[in-house]
Amino acid sequence: MKYSCSVFISAAVICCNLCFAQSGQSMAPVEDFKPATTNQPGRLFPQVNSERRVRASLAAPQANSVQLDLGGKKYALTKNEKGIWTGESLPQDEGFHYYQLLIDGAAVPDPGSLYFYGAGRLGSGIEIPATDRDFYSLKAVPHGMITENIYFSKLTNSWRRCFVYTPPGYTNDQKRRYPVLYLQHGSFEDETGWAMQGKANLILDNLIADKKAVEMIIVMDNGYAYKPQTGMQQDNNARSVSVFEEVMINEIIPMTDLKFRTIADREHRAIAGLSMGANQTMRIMMNNLDKFAYVAGFSGTSNYPGTDTLNPETFLDGKFKDGASVNKKIKVLWLSLGTKEPAPFPGSVGAFRAMLDRQKIKYAYAESPETGHEWLSWRRGLYGFAPLIFKN
Amino acid sequence: MKYSCSVFISAAVICCNLCFAQSGQSMAPVEDFKPATTNQPGRLFPQVNSERRVRASLAAPQANSVQLDLGGKKYALTKNEKGIWTGESLPQDEGFHYYQLLIDGAAVPDPGSLYFYGAGRLGSGIEIPATDRDFYSLKAVPHGMITENIYFSKLTNSWRRCFVYTPPGYTNDQKRRYPVLYLQHGSFEDETGWAMQGKANLILDNLIADKKAVEMIIVMDNGYAYKPQTGMQQDNNARSVSVFEEVMINEIIPMTDLKFRTIADREHRAIAGLSMGANQTMRIMMNNLDKFAYVAGFSGTSNYPGTDTLNPETFLDGKFKDGASVNKKIKVLWLSLGTKEPAPFPGSVGAFRAMLDRQKIKYAYAESPETGHEWLSWRRGLYGFAPLIFKN
Repeated sequence: MKYSCSVFISAAVICCNLCFAQSGQSMAPVEDFKPATTNQPGRLFPQVNSERRVRASLAAPQANSVQLDLGGKKYALTKNEKGIWTGESLPQDEGFHYYQLLIDGAAVPDPGSLYFYGAGRLGSGIEIPATDRDFYSLKAVPHGMITENIYFSKLTNSWRRCFVYTPPGYTNDQKRRYPVLYLQHGSFEDETGWAMQGKANLILDNLIADKKAVEMIIVMDNGYAYKPQTGMQQDNNARSVSVFEEVMINEIIPMTDLKFRTIADREHRAIAGLSMGANQTMRIMMNNLDKFAYVAGFSGTSNYPGTDTLNPETFLDGKFKDGASVNKKIKVLWLSLGTKEPAPFPGSVGAFRAMLDRQKIKYAYAESPETGHEWLSWRRGLYGFAPLIFKN
Repeated sequence: MKYSCSVFISAAVICCNLCFAQSGQSMAPVEDFKPATTNQPGRLFPQVNSERRVRASLAAPQANSVQLDLGGKKYALTKNEKGIWTGESLPQDEGFHYYQLLIDGAAVPDPGSLYFYGAGRLGSGIEIPATDRDFYSLKAVPHGMITENIYFSKLTNSWRRCFVYTPPGYTNDQKRRYPVLYLQHGSFEDETGWAMQGKANLILDNLIADKKAVEMIIVMDNGYAYKPQTGMQQDNNARSVSVFEEVMINEIIPMTDLKFRTIADREHRAIAGLSMGANQTMRIMMNNLDKFAYVAGFSGTSNYPGTDTLNPETFLDGKFKDGASVNKKIKVLWLSLGTKEPAPFPGSVGAFRAMLDRQKIKYAYAESPETGHEWLSWRRGLYGFAPLIFKN
C-alpha cells in the first residue's frame, strides 16, 4: 500500500528565482526584506526577502572582515561609514537553516537570532518562510503543551532529559489516556530539536484541530546514550558503546508510562526519527516488534551509509526476511526524503525501499519538494506520518 | 514577626581573595580553572577558578582586539601564535552573571556558553559556584517538571507564554490538587528567567525532598503586557499602557486553574517577583487581597525608585493605612535584598520597611551576603520564602 501525499503537493515550488539568481549573484536583491521569524524579540536583523535571500547586519566598527556563513557558503558583508556591516546571501531553500557569523575569523552566533541546538552547538538559525508554512504555523486552535522531564538514567549513570508534548485535551479530562509517539532527532542535534526548530507541537496542534490526526503524546529524548566507561576504557581511549536502544526500552518508555497517561501497549506506540534518529528508530522497531506498531524514518534508513542492494536474509539479522510477517506486525511503515538531499541519502533510502519492494513489505513513501537534509523535510515527514497512526 | 534566616547563614562569605585581588589585578591567577557549569556540552571555555575569576578564550585569527565584557568591566584578551585570544577577569561575585564578548567592537555571545534571556537579549551567562550552591543543585531527589504553556491573550491581543513547574508528586496522584505560587522576573528579562538561570525547579525539588516546603505549582509568566495600540496611539507615539495586572487576574490565574490541578482560593495562592516583578507583585497583591494570601518582593518594592519616607495615608492609595487589617489578610510578607545591591534598591526597600514598621505590619526580611542585583540574591530569596507558604 502506498499512501497518497497531499501533504507535499501543497508545497508548490517556485524555483525560477532560485535558478536565475544563482547564475547572477551580482544582481541587486529585491528590496522587500523583513526581519526573520526566528529573530530575538525586537531585532531587525537578520532579514529575508521574497527571493529567499538572507540579509545579515552587524555593528563591528574595528573589524577587518565580517562574513555570513550559511548553507555551506560564506558571503562577505561590507562596512558603511558607521561601522555597520551588511550583506546578502544567494536565495536559500525554504525552511530552517543553521548559520553563523565570521568576524575576523571568529565563528560566533548572530546576536540578532534565536539559538537552536544543531551542528553540534547552540547557535543561530533562520527560518525561510515555506509556501506550505501554514501546517507548522502558530494558529488560533487549541494548543498542547511541552513538558521538560529531567531523569536519572542508571544505564548511562547520568542525568538525561526529554521533552514531552501532551495534546490539547490532556488537561481537560484527567482520566483519558493517550497513544505515544517516540520521536528522535539527528546527529549533532539533541532533545530540543523537534520541539524548537521541528515545531512538532504546532504541527500536531494543527493536525488535531483539523481532525486529521488523533490526540497523542510525543516523547522527544536524546539519541546519544553511552555506557559509563570503566577506568580501563578511558585509559585506552576506547570507543563509547551506544546503549540508546536499552535506554529507550528499559528507561524512557517505562518512565513515560509512569509519569504520563499513556495507553501502554504496542498498538498505541509509534517510533520515528530523522537521519541518525531514523537509523536508530528502524533498528529499535525491528528488535522490538512487541513494543511498537508504527514506525517512520525521515531522511534515513538503517542501512545508512550503504547504498548497495540489501540481502534480506542477512540485513539486520534477517529481520525483513519474512515480508508477510512484517506486514502483520507493522501497521504503518513510513519513509520520506527531500528531493535535494545529498548522497548517500537517496541511494541509501533507495536501496532500502528496493528491498522492501522485493519482500512485498507495505510502506508509505513521500518526497519533500526542493528541500535538502534539513528541518523542512522532517517537519513535512511528521505532518505526513502523524495522520496515519493510531487510527484503529 | 521576623523570620530567622538560616537560609543565608550557610552562605559563608569568603571575601579575602576578592578584596585582595581587586587591588592587585596584575597578579597571576590561580591555575585551577574549570569549564563553567553554564557551558554548552563539551565546551572547555569559559572557565572559572577558585578565586572566582573568569577565563575567556576565542579563536579569532584576524581580529585586532577581543574583550570579555563582564560585570560592567571590559577585560582585554591577548592573542597567541595560533590566533587564539585568552584572558581573565577580576574575581566575580558568587552566582550567575550575564556577559558578552567584544570582537573588534562587535558585541556577540560567547560561542562556548549556553544562552539566557536577560539585559534585553538572549546572550551568554556564566555561573560562579556559590558556597551555598547545594540548595539549587541538581541532586538525586524526586524532580518536578516544567511545562511550556502557549496561550492567546485577549487583553493584549497577542500570543503569550508561561512556564509552569509541577512538583514531583503531581504525576503520581491524578486527583491531588496543589497551591500555586505566581513568580515574576525583572526588567529586561522574560518568562524563561526563573526556570533557566533562576533554577526555581531545582530549588523547589530540593526543598520538597527535605520536607522544608510543601508541594506547590509555580507559574512563571512574562511581566510585559500592553493594551493593543489603536492607530491614533501609534501615530502619536504614545506610551504603551501596561495591563499586566489585568492579564494576571483575568487571564493567567483562570487559565492556570483550568489547565492544572490547583486549589483555587486565596489561602492557596502566593505571588512573588524580583525587581520590576517585586514592584508589580506588591501592587497586584494590595489590589487583590481577595486573591492572594502570601507575597514576596526580592530586591524590590512598589515605591521604587523612590527612597523618601512613605506616607501610608497616600502611598498606593492608602492600602497600608490599616496595619492590623493588612496583618489579618497577608499571611506572609517577605522582603529580601543582596548586601551589594546598588542605589536606589537599599534606600527604596529601606523606606518601604520603615513604613511597614511604623504601621506594625509583620514581614520577614533577609539579606543575601555579598551579592548584588543578580540571580543569586533572587534564588536565595525564593529559597527563603518558599518554606514559609501554604503551611496552614
